[in-house]
Amino acid sequence: MSGGEFAFIRSIRDVTPPHPAVIVGPGDDCAVLAGPGRLLVTTDVLTEGVDFILHDCGLRAVGRKAMAVNLSDIAAMGGRPLAAVVGVVFPAGEGGARHELHLGLREVADAFRTPLVGGDTNSWDHGLVVSVTVLGEPIREPVLRSGAKPGDWIFVTGPCGGSILGRHLNPMPRLREVEALVTNFNLRSMIDVSDGLAADLNHILEESACGAVLHADAIPIHPDAIELATRSGRTPLDHALSDGEDFELIFTIDPQMGAKLLAAPPVPVWKIGECVTEAGLWMTVNGQQRPLAATGWEHRM
Amino acid sequence: MSGGEFAFIRSIRDVTPPHPAVIVGPGDDCAVLAGPGRLLVTTDVLTEGVDFILHDCGLRAVGRKAMAVNLSDIAAMGGRPLAAVVGVVFPAGEGGARHELHLGLREVADAFRTPLVGGDTNSWDHGLVVSVTVLGEPIREPVLRSGAKPGDWIFVTGPCGGSILGRHLNPMPRLREVEALVTNFNLRSMIDVSDGLAADLNHILEESACGAVLHADAIPIHPDAIELATRSGRTPLDHALSDGEDFELIFTIDPQMGAKLLAAPPVPVWKIGECVTEAGLWMTVNGQQRPLAATGWEHRM
Repeated sequence: MSGGEFAFIRSIRDVTPPHPAVIVGPGDDCAVLAGPGRLLVTTDVLTEGVDFILHDCGLRAVGRKAMAVNLSDIAAMGGRPLAAVVGVVFPAGEGGARHELHLGLREVADAFRTPLVGGDTNSWDHGLVVSVTVLGEPIREPVLRSGAKPGDWIFVTGPCGGSILGRHLNPMPRLREVEALVTNFNLRSMIDVSDGLAADLNHILEESACGAVLHADAIPIHPDAIELATRSGRTPLDHALSDGEDFELIFTIDPQMGAKLLAAPPVPVWKIGECVTEAGLWMTVNGQQRPLAATGWEHRM
Repeated sequence: MSGGEFAFIRSIRDVTPPHPAVIVGPGDDCAVLAGPGRLLVTTDVLTEGVDFILHDCGLRAVGRKAMAVNLSDIAAMGGRPLAAVVGVVFPAGEGGARHELHLGLREVADAFRTPLVGGDTNSWDHGLVVSVTVLGEPIREPVLRSGAKPGDWIFVTGPCGGSILGRHLNPMPRLREVEALVTNFNLRSMIDVSDGLAADLNHILEESACGAVLHADAIPIHPDAIELATRSGRTPLDHALSDGEDFELIFTIDPQMGAKLLAAPPVPVWKIGECVTEAGLWMTVNGQQRPLAATGWEHRM
């Protein structure tokens, strides 16, 4: 539900008049609803030829990814999932194999105790479309993109870059990590890495009206980024900053709390920088500070 | 979420292990979740060339229909809507006209005070796919398909048949009617007419393990059914019983309560028959009782 360049719904404010049931504004990973309790809701559509090549990855991987990216959005709000529904349009002829999609969806949903409570399916002569909606509840308060403050320390939950080598098809929603983090620490802002570490951090900065300085030698670089750099002509650090679909979490936290977190982290975390008052995204490399482009990952396969 | 012949998720029991959060079983219009409160959730996918001919009806009508059919499922559970999310895959080239889909969705959502709280869109070289998910809450208890008892009176909220002449593109979810009915009367079972009056009543009978006798001269016949009969070679009654996408509600109620309802109906209702102990669907025509086929409407445009 993070939009996309073709989004006609770019933000919650675009599509609905102010409504008492909607208590979170635009640009967040989920809407937060004041219903019978507080509720998170997120939806993502995966489209053949845009988000996956069915022939290469198969139905099961599509099912896994469709469920995982939605669960990741719940994680990014500091939530836990309650239930999922799915809408599917199958290509005609996939007949017997359709169960594979279901297996993939269930594999990930079951791993995070999320009941798949219903769905609707159709069939046509074109490509596969899978639309998943996940409901969740905040573990404590919903963690928004807009809560970062100058001085906050910036963390990421895992090494980034090079997901295109395979991890992008099998993302691991950081739900268990978020449960441990949110239960023990006040996170001020959070987002999951779908567009890229720099691009997604920039979403936080824009929503929070502050800037950030990252430290080049503190960015955790995934082995896939190193592998990819041997062929791409770019550096591993560049891949870690600008590749997408890592689905790690970026979060900010006040320095005192951040020091406590670093002293006894309940899950792996990397401190990668600090928020600053002046707008913009910066990086220190060998003691020198320079501007960092927030150019995100271009969706490609 | 009423399945469909290509459904790989035919029922909630098919897709999830028994789960404490899911308190309503298969075949209902929505899943009922025990979350922070009790929650209804339903999803329906509309697919170009299957559910609509985009060239004939335009984006706005597709938006209206996609929202309305989901709201109708909330009505059929005795619920009121809380919020909607939408996933869309646009055909490339629809560029400037995309806003029309949004307008159609909003037109119906706004009419029933349902905030459209988010969505995800994509674009490709194939047809239009619109997947809507609506959350709701029960007005009192959720009204299921499985609650009918022998002796119950059977009602419908409006005349049926011939929706193909145009009404099928502009269904009117019976949310206001259901609010009035559920607030004042204990409805025992309910469903909306999507497959056809006989076919959908039959869903209630199967889930409730009873039968029903309808009275031919009590079935409210829509003027469109009469119009269509002049060309189809079938009778207006046949159209009323077997055409689909009327989105009226069929409900059952115990006879005492039914008599009170008939004495002072808060909204228009037609009594069309009674539930009986023996299985099957029957109709009395000129005093004679004969079996009635539950053959539903074949989806066609």
